[in-house]
Amino acid sequence: MSLEESFAQLCVEESVEKTGVKTLVFKPKTAKIAVPVPVVVVALQSTTTPSPVIANAAGVKEPRLARDDLVQQHFQCESAKEFHVGYLSKATSEFKLLVDEQVLQTADSTVLQLAEGVFITRGKLTSYLQAFGPETVDFSQEVAKKESKPAAKSAVAKSGSIEDAKLIGITVDKSLDFSGWYQQILTKGEMLDYYDVSGCYILRPPSYAIWEAIQRWFDDKIKALGVQNAYFPMFVSSRVLEKEKDHIEGFAPEVAWVTRAGSSELEEPIAIRPTSETVMYPYYAKWIQSYRDLPIKLNQWNSVVRWEFKHPQPFLRTREFLWQEGHTAHLTEADAKEEVLQILDYYAGVYEELLAVPVVKGKKTEKEKFAGGEFTTTVEGYIPQTGRGIQGGTSHFLGQNFSKMFNISVENPLGPEHPKVFAYQNSWGLSTRVIGVMVMIHSDNKGLVIPPRVSQYQCVVLPVGITAKTGDEERASIHQSAKIIETKLRAASIRVFGDYNDNYTPGWKFAQYELKGIPLRVEFGPKDQKQEQVTIVRRNDGRKYTVKIAELEARVPQILEEMQADLYNRAKELFDTHRVIVEDWKDFVPALNRGNVILAPWCGVTECEEDIKDSSAKKDDGEEFEADEKSPSMGAKSLCIPFKQPKLKPGQGCIKCSRRAINYCMFGRSY
Amino acid sequence: MSLEESFAQLCVEESVEKTGVKTLVFKPKTAKIAVPVPVVVVALQSTTTPSPVIANAAGVKEPRLARDDLVQQHFQCESAKEFHVGYLSKATSEFKLLVDEQVLQTADSTVLQLAEGVFITRGKLTSYLQAFGPETVDFSQEVAKKESKPAAKSAVAKSGSIEDAKLIGITVDKSLDFSGWYQQILTKGEMLDYYDVSGCYILRPPSYAIWEAIQRWFDDKIKALGVQNAYFPMFVSSRVLEKEKDHIEGFAPEVAWVTRAGSSELEEPIAIRPTSETVMYPYYAKWIQSYRDLPIKLNQWNSVVRWEFKHPQPFLRTREFLWQEGHTAHLTEADAKEEVLQILDYYAGVYEELLAVPVVKGKKTEKEKFAGGEFTTTVEGYIPQTGRGIQGGTSHFLGQNFSKMFNISVENPLGPEHPKVFAYQNSWGLSTRVIGVMVMIHSDNKGLVIPPRVSQYQCVVLPVGITAKTGDEERASIHQSAKIIETKLRAASIRVFGDYNDNYTPGWKFAQYELKGIPLRVEFGPKDQKQEQVTIVRRNDGRKYTVKIAELEARVPQILEEMQADLYNRAKELFDTHRVIVEDWKDFVPALNRGNVILAPWCGVTECEEDIKDSSAKKDDGEEFEADEKSPSMGAKSLCIPFKQPKLKPGQGCIKCSRRAINYCMFGRSY
Repeated sequence: MSLEESFAQLCVEESVEKTGVKTLVFKPKTAKIAVPVPVVVVALQSTTTPSPVIANAAGVKEPRLARDDLVQQHFQCESAKEFHVGYLSKATSEFKLLVDEQVLQTADSTVLQLAEGVFITRGKLTSYLQAFGPETVDFSQEVAKKESKPAAKSAVAKSGSIEDAKLIGITVDKSLDFSGWYQQILTKGEMLDYYDVSGCYILRPPSYAIWEAIQRWFDDKIKALGVQNAYFPMFVSSRVLEKEKDHIEGFAPEVAWVTRAGSSELEEPIAIRPTSETVMYPYYAKWIQSYRDLPIKLNQWNSVVRWEFKHPQPFLRTREFLWQEGHTAHLTEADAKEEVLQILDYYAGVYEELLAVPVVKGKKTEKEKFAGGEFTTTVEGYIPQTGRGIQGGTSHFLGQNFSKMFNISVENPLGPEHPKVFAYQNSWGLSTRVIGVMVMIHSDNKGLVIPPRVSQYQCVVLPVGITAKTGDEERASIHQSAKIIETKLRAASIRVFGDYNDNYTPGWKFAQYELKGIPLRVEFGPKDQKQEQVTIVRRNDGRKYTVKIAELEARVPQILEEMQADLYNRAKELFDTHRVIVEDWKDFVPALNRGNVILAPWCGVTECEEDIKDSSAKKDDGEEFEADEKSPSMGAKSLCIPFKQPKLKPGQGCIKCSRRAINYCMFGRSY
Repeated sequence: MSLEESFAQLCVEESVEKTGVKTLVFKPKTAKIAVPVPVVVVALQSTTTPSPVIANAAGVKEPRLARDDLVQQHFQCESAKEFHVGYLSKATSEFKLLVDEQVLQTADSTVLQLAEGVFITRGKLTSYLQAFGPETVDFSQEVAKKESKPAAKSAVAKSGSIEDAKLIGITVDKSLDFSGWYQQILTKGEMLDYYDVSGCYILRPPSYAIWEAIQRWFDDKIKALGVQNAYFPMFVSSRVLEKEKDHIEGFAPEVAWVTRAGSSELEEPIAIRPTSETVMYPYYAKWIQSYRDLPIKLNQWNSVVRWEFKHPQPFLRTREFLWQEGHTAHLTEADAKEEVLQILDYYAGVYEELLAVPVVKGKKTEKEKFAGGEFTTTVEGYIPQTGRGIQGGTSHFLGQNFSKMFNISVENPLGPEHPKVFAYQNSWGLSTRVIGVMVMIHSDNKGLVIPPRVSQYQCVVLPVGITAKTGDEERASIHQSAKIIETKLRAASIRVFGDYNDNYTPGWKFAQYELKGIPLRVEFGPKDQKQEQVTIVRRNDGRKYTVKIAELEARVPQILEEMQADLYNRAKELFDTHRVIVEDWKDFVPALNRGNVILAPWCGVTECEEDIKDSSAKKDDGEEFEADEKSPSMGAKSLCIPFKQPKLKPGQGCIKCSRRAINYCMFGRSY
């Protein structure tokens, strides 16, 4: 079914109550030789759509209403007057799509009139528009969105009252403007704030608490393996940094340099670590003098700096980020390789057991592996809304490459007549990126959804049903009982708090704690008091439970674990149904465009991998879509060669070239 | 008793076995107008003392053997030939003292002949020399000590075999060359290593584990107060950094600036945080909109950078260091002040309960307080060997200074007709410096002594008494039983490991684990096996315990706690006996020179404080002794105004000036 056909099926026949929606096409000012990329605006009939707001939102100059010929040329529609969103699926070239926030604020079931005789419910319109990479715009604001990105509007200035009013709930639809939704959910949910140095973000307590939960879990695991924590300096001299050539080549463009202290220029610039291989290994060479000094297994919890010039994104691509980096040296290759996989299992555990995020374990291709190492293993996740894969954490087998470079060697245990042995090394890292992946996968239009195992708070206790008629005594009694409930839950090791503030209504509080993603809401009112029970509501799906107070300590942990499992299962189903096997190149890009990642038989040759990426990218429009990474035009990268392989048919060829396939590789658009 | 008299008393009458020691005076080359500072070298008769080695060690140019007139002038000794260490106490001016490492390597009881008829045991010589700030020199090395300081000799190069031989035990006496001892104990004990960026050090697992123990303890305490952890970026724009003028003035000369990323110059240099007041408070202003948003209590565990140009010292003065910084904002002054003191109690708890280090709580003077705040509270420690005080951790009441600067304000809870309220703020920080203080206080010439509560490992289990005659079966049986003992201890939550390596003798292992400061050694041999017991030896004093295996789980925790208490009590006695009340200025400097800190009645005036510092410094030699901070010539700073005050006599005057004293202030030379 083509998009065009599917649009027809989405439409409803007729309706009594209808809200008018206009679809306008604008032509921005461009250089004469350039092909103009039109801007399509979908807005309520009642909304004024000032040209400067469109210009800012779309990042174009002087947009003017397009003439019929342009509408005809780009959308195969006879005239601008007849144009509506149905024509978007007929587009012959790239365009930008802006959607009025007011449209999204109507109910899911609202019937919208798009043109004479063309009706659609708002919910269906939303789904339909999703394919075209829409951006939500608030036309009521003087300052358009592009100008007021949180990073730019210095947080130093207090926001005005109009803005404050908007700060309460999420105003962007996850399915319609994923990136805008992601920003809102993080800032309004108080996970993170934008900072006045670009690419840096503030981790507020709810996100840092998730990181602490991950730290505790992973730290216990690696300590049981004999890993010890240490701290190496954040500074590294250029001489040491540049010692391993392949390695530094990957990082050099992103290294931040300190050149001045106080008012003195430093004699030599000093780098801030982008990772610590070259910081640590000179000392491994010094400390390891005998094979009895092996293995050495050190880990550090620290921050590293990679001054990326690409578009930054909270948690996913930031110039400073928190992570752990493990660096181990072993006497034998087998020991090192065993550890690499053990650590990868723990990384999968962080995602699957703590964050309820399914991942695929596998090996990176030669092109995508860590520069300077032998091979890289990885856990790869999937973001359903964008259909993109995301690297989750990597565990590298470095072989003897670094140990030869830094002379990390010992006398052969077999005796001095045997050649000396260079250590086999691993390095492995997991960063706060995991939090971004978790948020993208579970959260919704009401706010954050946080898996109970990592949530800073698991329950909020709220007195409800107190009205103006409630007597002081009853009110006090309800508050008192609610506090006892809170205490009981805390005694059962539940991370709980209560909100007994009478200045806000229960409804306002419900919305607040939904926004913040508190897993369970425990309501307690006059009726509950009589029946010695509470009403518990799950954040993820609003499911309600009535639980006797006497059973709280036993039941609440169960409900939390059920919620944890449900979050994982739902995310797993989405990943499983969007990881499709494709064996014929003609099906590759269409499958990609349907938001899948692809398992394809592949030859393993780097040139072919590059060809797959190029051939799956849409580049005919000449726009730099890859730069902002929002567009579905980016090519498919290899994500990993999964450990769990479909069986290759005898003689199976590569998905792209004429070579023989050697295994299945997972490809996808990615972060 | 004068030093001279006391030297006479230290000497022994005569001896059969005697080792010859020479005392030589050198005159360095100086500008004509300058008074030469002689260099005294104490060495075995058999040691050659090359002039370049002396030059390097003493930091002087072309030292030549002094003529009689100089020896007469400086030491009141008739001729260079008659000169010996006894004359040092007659010195009329400053001199430098170098001591041959070979002298220190003789046994404590070795009788040394200093001159005809002058004998002294090595132990007593060591104590005597301590008063003169000696420096240990290894004359056997081609490269003299000053040149081969660990920071300079790049750790990248493997140390040669001669050096390796020296690396096994501590070769410097704590009482004789404290600073050399401190370096050795940290590096050989594997707490820390020197790094190839000056002023930066590597925290190896044993020291990082101590930091983790402190983190766990303190983090639990502050979370119980409602403090939450967060993470703010390490970068800060100059505009924000410089917002609070008094504050930045204190830090500006030490701020490290990033000016380049990859090969691109940044448009604006970006600072690395020296502390986070100005990083965080703009966001407090944004987040705090109503008095219901108060208090806000955030803490972060991070590293900060202060590019100090003074002589760096491991843990005590480093260019990057780990710490926690708490930043809270309160509605009322009373709440803020209550917290400041509560946190100070926790800081005292870190020292006294975890690190077995006694501290004095008090308030900093106006001169020494945190710039930009209202007042600073502090815990102050004491290092007996140097007689110097050391600041342990500070908790600042910032008042409304920052909140007015950053507009952290709320509507008055009393109503909009009342003026808006600026928040009352605190900030408080404790750094890895604590580890340095702990090492300086407890450790000894055998190596580290680490209090059991924070030690990475608390016990090492060692099979002993296995000889060449021991049968394979008995050996195996002892090893097996030792491993069971290890398991039993671990099950009792003791941090324990065993060393079952047959390649090293028990004696070698004893020395190793003494060097590393493992609190208890659990020995298990054939005799122990028969009697179902172990022998436990305490690291701090070698005290032995025989413990039945059946009682291990109960007894070992007791012994650990006893050791913890003994360490604290011994340190407390040393601090208590070296914290003396002085009421007359003439006694001030002598008391200081005897290695005390001083409680003196004081007027509270900053000019007087500066006068006390100047007047207690020895400056007549023109040498920049203060620069290297080793010399006892530095002046006394105010350490704090202790909360626990001696009673001031009516009408008591200031120790230094003619003003009335307002309270007792603790003064001392300090780190």
